[in-house]
Amino acid sequence: MCEANAYLVKGGKEELVMESVDVIRPEGTSIYIQDIFGEQLWVKARIKEMNLVQHRIVFEEDQCLEG
Amino acid sequence: MCEANAYLVKGGKEELVMESVDVIRPEGTSIYIQDIFGEQLWVKARIKEMNLVQHRIVFEEDQCLEG
Repeated sequence: MCEANAYLVKGGKEELVMESVDVIRPEGTSIYIQDIFGEQLWVKARIKEMNLVQHRIVFEEDQCLEG
Repeated sequence: MCEANAYLVKGGKEELVMESVDVIRPEGTSIYIQDIFGEQLWVKARIKEMNLVQHRIVFEEDQCLEG
């Protein structure tokens, strides 16, 4: 299977938010993610980088929302 | 390998822009993509949806740029 793990960079640290991610869909200021088991999550962030061969998705908090 | 094919929705049609995509990185109003062979491409678009199990990445043209 070719799912990936999704990480959120928050305060300089990387935290795992979901494993085995299948679907990623930006929706306004959030990102909808769904894993291969159908679990769903909305992350208030933007996509920083994805590396599919390494199975890595990295989100970062939108700094515009913090001010 | 877990790379994916990247498609761009343009005028209602889907066109293949790159096969075997490894890295995806939004950069301002463009998206930087790199395939497993190191080939690079910048696509003036935003991410619409990704489905990793189906190896599909779909971009769409940013409608804000068209007006």
